[in-house]
Amino acid sequence: MANITKRVSWSSLCEDRAPGEGTALLDDTPGARRCRRQEFSGGSLFRIGRLSTIDLDEEVTSKEETLKQPNEIPHNEKLLSLKYESLDYDNIENQLFLEEEGQMSPMGFKCVEISRWVICGLIGFLTGLIACFIDIVVEIVAAYKYKIVKRYIDQFVVEGGLCASVILWAILNSAFVMAGSLVVAIFEPIAAGSGIPQIKCYLNGVKIPRVVRLKEGPMIHSGAVVAAGVSQGRSTSLKKDLKIFEYFRRDTEKRDFVSAGAAAGVSAAFGAPVGGVLFSLEEGASFWNQMLTWRIFFASMISTFTLNFFRSIYNGNPGELANPGLINFGQFESGAYKLYEIPIFICMGAVGGVLGAGFNALNYWLTIFRIRYIHRSYLQVIEAILAAAATATVSYILMYCSDDCQTPGEHQAVEYPLQLFCPDGQHNSIATVFFNTPERSVRNLFHNFPGSYNSLTLFLFTFTYFFLACWTYGLTVSAGVFIPSLLLGAAWGRLIGNLLTNSGVSIFADPGKYALMGAAAQLGGIVRMTLSLTVIMVEATGNVTYGLPIMLVLMTSKIVGDYFAEGLYDIHIKLQSVPFLGWEAPATSHSFTAREVMSSPVMCFNRTEKVGTIVDVLSNTSAKHNGFPIVSDFTTNEPGRICGLILRSQLIVLLKHKVFVERAQLKQRKLLLKDFRDAYPRFPPIQSIHVSQDERECTMDLTEFMNPTPYTVPQETSLPRVFKLFRALGLRHLVVVDNENRVVGLVTRKDLARYHLGKHGLEELQLAQT
Amino acid sequence: MANITKRVSWSSLCEDRAPGEGTALLDDTPGARRCRRQEFSGGSLFRIGRLSTIDLDEEVTSKEETLKQPNEIPHNEKLLSLKYESLDYDNIENQLFLEEEGQMSPMGFKCVEISRWVICGLIGFLTGLIACFIDIVVEIVAAYKYKIVKRYIDQFVVEGGLCASVILWAILNSAFVMAGSLVVAIFEPIAAGSGIPQIKCYLNGVKIPRVVRLKEGPMIHSGAVVAAGVSQGRSTSLKKDLKIFEYFRRDTEKRDFVSAGAAAGVSAAFGAPVGGVLFSLEEGASFWNQMLTWRIFFASMISTFTLNFFRSIYNGNPGELANPGLINFGQFESGAYKLYEIPIFICMGAVGGVLGAGFNALNYWLTIFRIRYIHRSYLQVIEAILAAAATATVSYILMYCSDDCQTPGEHQAVEYPLQLFCPDGQHNSIATVFFNTPERSVRNLFHNFPGSYNSLTLFLFTFTYFFLACWTYGLTVSAGVFIPSLLLGAAWGRLIGNLLTNSGVSIFADPGKYALMGAAAQLGGIVRMTLSLTVIMVEATGNVTYGLPIMLVLMTSKIVGDYFAEGLYDIHIKLQSVPFLGWEAPATSHSFTAREVMSSPVMCFNRTEKVGTIVDVLSNTSAKHNGFPIVSDFTTNEPGRICGLILRSQLIVLLKHKVFVERAQLKQRKLLLKDFRDAYPRFPPIQSIHVSQDERECTMDLTEFMNPTPYTVPQETSLPRVFKLFRALGLRHLVVVDNENRVVGLVTRKDLARYHLGKHGLEELQLAQT
Repeated sequence: MANITKRVSWSSLCEDRAPGEGTALLDDTPGARRCRRQEFSGGSLFRIGRLSTIDLDEEVTSKEETLKQPNEIPHNEKLLSLKYESLDYDNIENQLFLEEEGQMSPMGFKCVEISRWVICGLIGFLTGLIACFIDIVVEIVAAYKYKIVKRYIDQFVVEGGLCASVILWAILNSAFVMAGSLVVAIFEPIAAGSGIPQIKCYLNGVKIPRVVRLKEGPMIHSGAVVAAGVSQGRSTSLKKDLKIFEYFRRDTEKRDFVSAGAAAGVSAAFGAPVGGVLFSLEEGASFWNQMLTWRIFFASMISTFTLNFFRSIYNGNPGELANPGLINFGQFESGAYKLYEIPIFICMGAVGGVLGAGFNALNYWLTIFRIRYIHRSYLQVIEAILAAAATATVSYILMYCSDDCQTPGEHQAVEYPLQLFCPDGQHNSIATVFFNTPERSVRNLFHNFPGSYNSLTLFLFTFTYFFLACWTYGLTVSAGVFIPSLLLGAAWGRLIGNLLTNSGVSIFADPGKYALMGAAAQLGGIVRMTLSLTVIMVEATGNVTYGLPIMLVLMTSKIVGDYFAEGLYDIHIKLQSVPFLGWEAPATSHSFTAREVMSSPVMCFNRTEKVGTIVDVLSNTSAKHNGFPIVSDFTTNEPGRICGLILRSQLIVLLKHKVFVERAQLKQRKLLLKDFRDAYPRFPPIQSIHVSQDERECTMDLTEFMNPTPYTVPQETSLPRVFKLFRALGLRHLVVVDNENRVVGLVTRKDLARYHLGKHGLEELQLAQT
Repeated sequence: MANITKRVSWSSLCEDRAPGEGTALLDDTPGARRCRRQEFSGGSLFRIGRLSTIDLDEEVTSKEETLKQPNEIPHNEKLLSLKYESLDYDNIENQLFLEEEGQMSPMGFKCVEISRWVICGLIGFLTGLIACFIDIVVEIVAAYKYKIVKRYIDQFVVEGGLCASVILWAILNSAFVMAGSLVVAIFEPIAAGSGIPQIKCYLNGVKIPRVVRLKEGPMIHSGAVVAAGVSQGRSTSLKKDLKIFEYFRRDTEKRDFVSAGAAAGVSAAFGAPVGGVLFSLEEGASFWNQMLTWRIFFASMISTFTLNFFRSIYNGNPGELANPGLINFGQFESGAYKLYEIPIFICMGAVGGVLGAGFNALNYWLTIFRIRYIHRSYLQVIEAILAAAATATVSYILMYCSDDCQTPGEHQAVEYPLQLFCPDGQHNSIATVFFNTPERSVRNLFHNFPGSYNSLTLFLFTFTYFFLACWTYGLTVSAGVFIPSLLLGAAWGRLIGNLLTNSGVSIFADPGKYALMGAAAQLGGIVRMTLSLTVIMVEATGNVTYGLPIMLVLMTSKIVGDYFAEGLYDIHIKLQSVPFLGWEAPATSHSFTAREVMSSPVMCFNRTEKVGTIVDVLSNTSAKHNGFPIVSDFTTNEPGRICGLILRSQLIVLLKHKVFVERAQLKQRKLLLKDFRDAYPRFPPIQSIHVSQDERECTMDLTEFMNPTPYTVPQETSLPRVFKLFRALGLRHLVVVDNENRVVGLVTRKDLARYHLGKHGLEELQLAQT
């Protein structure tokens, strides 16, 4: 360590700090090795303004405490994990890049553009195909399950011994879940849950390991995975490299395609191409680019069209494009609501907000519990099986106790009518909810004629399903929260509709639209998405006149929900301590400047640097930095003037290819941009690169590889201004300079994500390596 | 002039330029006074790379030539006008701002946020109300006109003397047009046309004088005007200041609200709230902000809802929300197209592209003609009257010659059936097209049963209407190109549909959907909008399954059209020489750096500057600069180090309030941010501010008013990088510094808009004062 510090061109702390400040922080206090923050960002521990000053000793102590419980994974909301890296959305305009661009003809640019379109088309097509496949498989498997269980129940109702049927059902359920759970727990833990929090983080610019590797999962995630595979022309999971689309092997391009994939996934799931585009934009895009958006839209369109087309073939009506999405809300009457119903809808939005907040709070505690006690694979599988069995049992008890018998209406075919104890020609109403895929149950709740459901049935269903759904989210299976939320909301919405219809006031004739509003309110209350969710709901209902009430409901549920608890995805992101960047810096942070936010001192390199120095710095495990400013005019007293920025990944490639200069003689062939692309995205660790003692004495000329014009800000720049620059340009490193352009600090995602507006003003999260 | 140059802290040319270069350009060559570019941006005349070097003498000569024809307004596409200013989208975070923010409580921030929502709601409501008003007035006036003309024609058919009726019609038409034209030509010339190019420019960040002042006009423009008025809490046109919403009196906030207004306008026009949002984003937003988008969406929703609601009252069915937009395409059958029709749609897209390009080329020549010869008000009014009369005459001739008689179908009521020479019980088919508002005619073309229109009729109509519509766009009346394009496209689309139906192949049963595709193709071919237009069309048809074909049609028409001519709005923007910024820098411009792009030398001020100097610089009419870097360490040999940026408008306010320091004594009260807001947006010219000789000797301390951390880039930054920064942050001034942070140049909108990709690679536009 001491060896390195001597060689590396450390920039000193910024000059205008009082002498003595910050320097004490560099002492080798116990536990300091564990936390980069303490070693390298001493300067930024000084707070001014409204922030409560954090005592260093206190921080160290709390860290020590954490270390005492090694088996317990920290789940502190006030932590920010250092294990997540950022994506490089900024283009590295080094000499290699300029040379390559210079050699490209205008025709070449056109070809690249056309490839982008082709890839987006492919992404859309494959996502649609996968959606179609999933849809058909789910339909067949579900039909099979319902048929068997129904036969046995029907049989046992007559012969007695109903207990056997519930056991059968529970076993069937558990078997399916166990299969899924085993795959997830053993092979790909990240496939658990809906994948939406992960995709949100990825689009936000956080590199979540393995997030876009091949796996099955809900549609949004599937689309993203397809996009990552197709756009790179290879798949590491499948160990296959097609050697095409090599131009797109960098974070910038890949993220754009993943946006398209996520949009295509939404589009296929809900038949909502515009909603898909808006989802991608809302979650990901910082810089709005017209052509990119247009391509994303293209992928979405192709995706919903493919699904529609192949489903029409499967249904035997080729070309009859009537199923744009996996979940279809069915056709709602145009203009079927009245102005005086809007206050009712808004109240329902508030109910959705409260229920959603309750759901989220419950799930939060459950997740904490899981993190603490259920972190072994076998425990996770057992939990999943238990949940499946419990679902079957509870459903069964509900059906058994229910005396809600219904005669099937004219226009509604009940696919698996369960008679149970009902008179002949009638069926058990609650059984139809359970004996259908949730998608179909939602549609039934929206469209079945008034009186199809008994109010008590709906209440009992809402009550039990609330807890079951809450338990299910976060299990080690690939399952989302969208459909359960919709079903839950539709149930209590329908209940409100029933009550209004029964109130005797004739104007509330149709409980279906209340089910729709309930579904929107519940979903909004849980996930708290705004614009994109409105458009998705509007597209799924296929009726633009419902736009305003849906929007009002979603707004209300978000406002009310935000008052009590955060959105479900945000909770899970926080529990993972992901450095997620919001849309804007906290409103009260104008008095903060880059000087307080940045990490300093910064590890810098010279334009021509000794190989040994570089290897030592990269090997320094206590400070796994990823970007290194290149400086000139560096003396021991003063920090150097910024003249470039180089990434760890670039240095790794340079070291791997041994681009060393010995006695002013380049020992290797000149590198091309292609060499960097080939190594993308899994650059080898520094430990795997062997550098001999002789080679350590060589130098490396970084000039033509570095980004010669990194974005910089002066130290006095306010936090919102830094934030805006960082967010708008999708940066990973932002160099802070003094008024002579000398490097005094570096702002990364973690430095910005650390600040958030809590209940007592601006709060600061702690950084942790876990 | 010499006087000023001595006093002002000119920064010298960047050091690393060879001596002698650039300096010659500062000579007082003839004509140089007229063109700021020659005086102040000598340095940037040096081009490297693929750019053809522009000889200075040549430039001067061409300018001289232009000056010889003073009556002719230049219409050179290769010019960029210097008369347009930029909006300040960047927040000026000076000390006053920080103080104000510091005094605001978290509650205060919430109040501001709530006001934003309230304003957006108001914008939506008022826009919807205006749309409703326009709709009803147009309907009444049109009904009145058609009734009179029909009566006379019916009468004359029997009695003879049909000539009289055409004269009557022509006179009626002309009278209406004359009224509109007179208002526009005399009071508000900018209200001519659709207003969309102007709004495009405004949202792009160009200050178009008087663009958002009170006037009538098509919906998009109306929405924008309403937004500007409401958000500022005052109207200069109406000379009324409500003293509310003063916080929003700055460019940043105003532009956000104008985006919302434009979206609300689109939303009311087409019943397309999502399309409206996307229109605003596509044209305006550079930085995607979730909350802003959500607010824009809210305004759109309220707007379409308001229109819908008041129309339902007008139609006698209060609460029956069936008319979301002014133009309604009517309900299309779901999934009514087949896969094999898609190639036909794509071909139609190509036809639309070709026709659109032809339309645009014709309109381009017409506009050139108008600029040259019809620039007096009375000539403009006469032209408008002529066009109206010609429309009536041509329509009349068409009707007269047509023998296309139709029996009204069961489901279609013809409101003003004109029998003419048809047998009893039938009506002249072409007359129904003319004797309806174009909106209704479009709907009829989409939905009337097969066989309603004779192919010859459609052909003749397309042919004549093409020229009439082309003539109409650009007349001195407030009229857009959207509806005429739709009508034109629907006509030839229906024609293609007719031909296919008559081809005997039974599968092409419905010509209506071809009319829809034709309308999309024609509109796309003329305006070349992409994403937003697709969504607008999909929302107007109310059927998401038509999304893919509409998108394919629009894509094709754009690609084909772009091959021949530019989009209509872009043509008009170019003819105005507006410095419009595209989405990205030209693809081949990576070899360009900020050094070549920037204007230099830059006029700078010291932190404490003499009042006389400031007044002289501001009064310098030959260089109406708007932003001045503040420098320190300035010597005569070296440019100073950047330490801030101040705007002309700020200096004007400071001078007006006489914030002078005399013998280290501030003579006036301290200014507040409110004083700057009160002066916004019409800051008085420097000439109107009287500064006595004594006061000239005082100094002004600019420190607390300047923006202390303007964004800067090093000289080596590539053009695309500069462009991205400029665009993403909505900048007006970007300071270029050397590696010691010394000011060497300034990049403004004009410097970036100058480069565009022509047919022979990168081209550079000339700058002109006109």
